[in-house]
Amino acid sequence: MPKVDSLIIGEGPAGVTAALYLARSGCSVVLAEQMTTGGQILATSSLENYPGYPQGIKGYELADLFAAHLQGLEHLERKSGAVTQVAGEAGNFTVTFQDKSVVSCRSVLVCSGAKHRKLGVEREEELTGHGVSYCALCDGNFFRGKPVAVVGGGNAALEESLYLANIVDKIHLIHRRDTFRARKTYYDRLSAMGDKVVFHLDSQVTKLLGVKDLSAIGISNLKTGAYEEVNVEAIFIYVGFEPVTTFLPEELERDPQGFIVTDTEMRTNLPGIFAAGDIRSKLCRQVITAAGDGATAAQAAFVFLEQLHG
Amino acid sequence: MPKVDSLIIGEGPAGVTAALYLARSGCSVVLAEQMTTGGQILATSSLENYPGYPQGIKGYELADLFAAHLQGLEHLERKSGAVTQVAGEAGNFTVTFQDKSVVSCRSVLVCSGAKHRKLGVEREEELTGHGVSYCALCDGNFFRGKPVAVVGGGNAALEESLYLANIVDKIHLIHRRDTFRARKTYYDRLSAMGDKVVFHLDSQVTKLLGVKDLSAIGISNLKTGAYEEVNVEAIFIYVGFEPVTTFLPEELERDPQGFIVTDTEMRTNLPGIFAAGDIRSKLCRQVITAAGDGATAAQAAFVFLEQLHG
Repeated sequence: MPKVDSLIIGEGPAGVTAALYLARSGCSVVLAEQMTTGGQILATSSLENYPGYPQGIKGYELADLFAAHLQGLEHLERKSGAVTQVAGEAGNFTVTFQDKSVVSCRSVLVCSGAKHRKLGVEREEELTGHGVSYCALCDGNFFRGKPVAVVGGGNAALEESLYLANIVDKIHLIHRRDTFRARKTYYDRLSAMGDKVVFHLDSQVTKLLGVKDLSAIGISNLKTGAYEEVNVEAIFIYVGFEPVTTFLPEELERDPQGFIVTDTEMRTNLPGIFAAGDIRSKLCRQVITAAGDGATAAQAAFVFLEQLHG
Repeated sequence: MPKVDSLIIGEGPAGVTAALYLARSGCSVVLAEQMTTGGQILATSSLENYPGYPQGIKGYELADLFAAHLQGLEHLERKSGAVTQVAGEAGNFTVTFQDKSVVSCRSVLVCSGAKHRKLGVEREEELTGHGVSYCALCDGNFFRGKPVAVVGGGNAALEESLYLANIVDKIHLIHRRDTFRARKTYYDRLSAMGDKVVFHLDSQVTKLLGVKDLSAIGISNLKTGAYEEVNVEAIFIYVGFEPVTTFLPEELERDPQGFIVTDTEMRTNLPGIFAAGDIRSKLCRQVITAAGDGATAAQAAFVFLEQLHG
């Protein structure tokens, strides 16, 4: 493959939007993804706050629309696979994939998002897929009419609890603090559900119980030290995201949590490398901000490429 | 009216998205607009690059969807009118409107966009509405089957030329440089139209001719000095945007063009004042970036308000 103007890593909202803008600008683009188009949208049941869809839209539906937007674009090539290394410098990067294939490019747009953080409790990995889950949309239906637990205090935890409330019998919502970081409307709606939602505040999950499948969890109160066990067949864990940046140069500036630091135009400290979406160091990780980031990064890359060409 | 958490100025994509996010977070919000919902979307015929609408969407349709998204939101109040002054400081702002009404608020989100820059040619104001226009979508239909001119070299100029090409008989496209800043796809499509589009590069409009209505323009070549007159019944001017920030404190940092400088979280140099959308100093002014900005500004304002409450 001849050297391309831009390689975009990740087909979530940031990568799709960046590809759309760069390809429409006439730049040659390779868009790489190891799974399917959509990113975290695919792990979201329903979006109520994507402007342009006032009635809300299901995550997989929006992902399909994003995928459709890429169809028939000139200058755009898709590549399937995971990136294992980005090396080189402005105008002359080499990107290596897991299958050892290599793409040469003038600029790199890192839109590879973040993955769910683990709880860090014993047996968590062993029971993943056997009651331990990080995606209510994917797994919620297996627990119809059963009691489940949700861990976390942010938007994701409460959004997914609202989704689960239509499916399961009871939700134990466990959060290590005494207030939620999530949107107040989510909390209000869950509170109004009465017995269906049991709040365990100032608490953390300290045990995962069950033989082959999860059957109960141990909950410890961080203030009183009290310990109780509740019967649940599933636990959905929403305790944050972690960026995956191991394939990127060490010199690339990250924040203490490992997210990539950019300026307002999505430029990193390394010329020719841009970052957009959830992998950036920022306050607000939403579909609309990721998509906006993607367009901004594309424009910044376009300007960079223009300057490169002289 | 009791003091509200946030006053948002402008109901374009940035202001609408900010209102959506802040109101859903449980903050009390006043959203002010002097015209109707949509901002610059209303001056755009069709958007091909708003992710989620792969088939494209007409500007007024997207504006309607944005307006619909605001319906029934708790904590949100709408206010009609133009802002004439923002005074005060973090936690304690006073915003004055043209009708002398006043809103007290803890934070201000400036999403008031930018307006079209004038060409600066004699008789421009006199002939506005008589052949001189800044909005092809609004006025293009009056010139069906007639020759028109478009001035500018950016996306707006070429996008609107493409729109006009379906309506008018001939387009004289006048640009002061020898290359376009616009997306290459736009240029390619216009070039492929043959005689319909006449390119006047390295040129500027130096005369507006006609008795009561525009009937011709004078074009001067900046390199050769050659002057010619061409018959057109309309001229559509797309030579950039200017931000309107006269109502804001002098201490608010602006760039040399007058756009508001923010950090990556849309915070200005004045605590409690945020800016989002076209009024910001940035490279990429698009609907999707404005909407992304709005969500980011809302989250930053939310964090600011939390800290204020202690």
